[in-house]
Amino acid sequence: MSSSPGRGTIAVVADKNLTVVVPILASGLPEERIEAANVITDPSAVDIVVSDGPFPGALKAFPGLRLVVSLWAGVDHLLTDPDLPPHALVTRLVDANLTAAMVEAVLAHVLAAHRQHDVYRRAQGEKRWAPRRQPLVSDRVVGVLGLGTLGTAAAHALRAVGFQVHGWSRTHHDVPDIEVRTGDDGLRALLERADILVNLLPLTPTTRGILCRETLSQLPQGAVVINVARGAHLVERDLLALLDSGHLRHAVLDVHATEPLPEHHPSWAHPRIDVFPHVAGPTDPATAAERAVETILAFRAGRPLTNLVGR
Amino acid sequence: MSSSPGRGTIAVVADKNLTVVVPILASGLPEERIEAANVITDPSAVDIVVSDGPFPGALKAFPGLRLVVSLWAGVDHLLTDPDLPPHALVTRLVDANLTAAMVEAVLAHVLAAHRQHDVYRRAQGEKRWAPRRQPLVSDRVVGVLGLGTLGTAAAHALRAVGFQVHGWSRTHHDVPDIEVRTGDDGLRALLERADILVNLLPLTPTTRGILCRETLSQLPQGAVVINVARGAHLVERDLLALLDSGHLRHAVLDVHATEPLPEHHPSWAHPRIDVFPHVAGPTDPATAAERAVETILAFRAGRPLTNLVGR
Repeated sequence: MSSSPGRGTIAVVADKNLTVVVPILASGLPEERIEAANVITDPSAVDIVVSDGPFPGALKAFPGLRLVVSLWAGVDHLLTDPDLPPHALVTRLVDANLTAAMVEAVLAHVLAAHRQHDVYRRAQGEKRWAPRRQPLVSDRVVGVLGLGTLGTAAAHALRAVGFQVHGWSRTHHDVPDIEVRTGDDGLRALLERADILVNLLPLTPTTRGILCRETLSQLPQGAVVINVARGAHLVERDLLALLDSGHLRHAVLDVHATEPLPEHHPSWAHPRIDVFPHVAGPTDPATAAERAVETILAFRAGRPLTNLVGR
Repeated sequence: MSSSPGRGTIAVVADKNLTVVVPILASGLPEERIEAANVITDPSAVDIVVSDGPFPGALKAFPGLRLVVSLWAGVDHLLTDPDLPPHALVTRLVDANLTAAMVEAVLAHVLAAHRQHDVYRRAQGEKRWAPRRQPLVSDRVVGVLGLGTLGTAAAHALRAVGFQVHGWSRTHHDVPDIEVRTGDDGLRALLERADILVNLLPLTPTTRGILCRETLSQLPQGAVVINVARGAHLVERDLLALLDSGHLRHAVLDVHATEPLPEHHPSWAHPRIDVFPHVAGPTDPATAAERAVETILAFRAGRPLTNLVGR
């Protein structure tokens, strides 16, 4: 590994995936000097960080940082990192396998909600044989919050299965066959109609806590909430109150304000919450590293970065 | 309601749906004499029975019976009815809404099995944060037993979502994009590869008890079994033994040998069985009655009956 003039070191900020990520970067970027962040020889020479998740304070050592390549799809921890230099660029992971996995997770959760798996599970617990009226997918409205790569892919897959799909995005996106809404009025209109709500928003200062008493109580009686984005989108106590009052029927939480979910957390034992351990959109560190190689090659060549995140 | 010469009475064998079915038949068949079976004036004049489920002994009164129009998709109870005259024809319900509902149920159950909802639910019960490796749908083989209207539709929908789908049928059917197998060797080949098995066979003397120790133990370690056809396809004690030994991971039983499932039945409390109260393919009595009108019009006009069941 040698470094050309004007080209700095690549620091890899990772723990358990370090041994997967570094060899893939080294093999794909033979011209680069690549070092684990905790054993870096000259921190002032680092101009690129490859980041595998939130490591508070890790960026502080690198005053010459120009690019952070996230191995994660969600980059909220980077955008709010006080050590991120103001002009540094941030790219996120966009990976076909991650998108496919997320779409599968959303389809599985939405279909389970649609077919009332939660209701029948409670009936089974009481040994109660209780068939219920079952609408068809064409009679159900699914609201999808967020129409980025993942939200758009999920909306398409839900539409393909036959659901009525309404999407909401901060800025307008045209998505074929999907009713797209924007702004506060658009959000209210979507929530009022959504039998099943799927959150796939990015976590930003505007979307933090967006799933709160005010918004969740706009959902129709008996709605199901599925959060597969970030725990901080949801005000957990508001969700619990609306589940306990019977306004909401059920919630599926793949993400949580604190992860791993602490043992004493009320979500674990709540009869109307399905807890999943942040598995809807798992990152494969090997393919994420391959995407990082592509991003770094483009950056060094001065080509546009397709996965750039707006700060 | 008058009857033409050579045209007999239509007897409706039903209980709770009688008040839905009779007016639809009367409105669609104004030339016919339609009577509830239990208040029939001249049983010897009955040549058509419209049947809403198993009513043992109900056919005995009608020696002139030429056609039984089932309002159900499954007609095993009629084919084994000792009172069914040898030359009487039997038609089954084929209804677009029923097919759509069954396809949705199969998709929901297969995706839940694929995404390991059962495993995460057990982990939640123990407050255990335990992410697992998650293959993509393209890495999963779903075996579909039965390639009639429902099996073929389910196989197509599973393929469209991205699963590898293998189908098995007693007689050969060509189904695009589906690996179709027949015969005992074909069944073994399918079972050996199926991560998730869906039963949509008709219940016949050959398929009764087909899901038994011998066949279920051919499934790979950790497979999931989904029965949405008839309870009598499955030897329940063999399933329980293979779940308890750990060979099978989970089972979803929408149908049961005795329905409603008795309170003391072991399926209710088994941690590896999801009990559903026969809701995968619900019959809408109104649309079923409309299909019956079409069948009877075709029969009276001497046109071919598209939903005829081979005896």
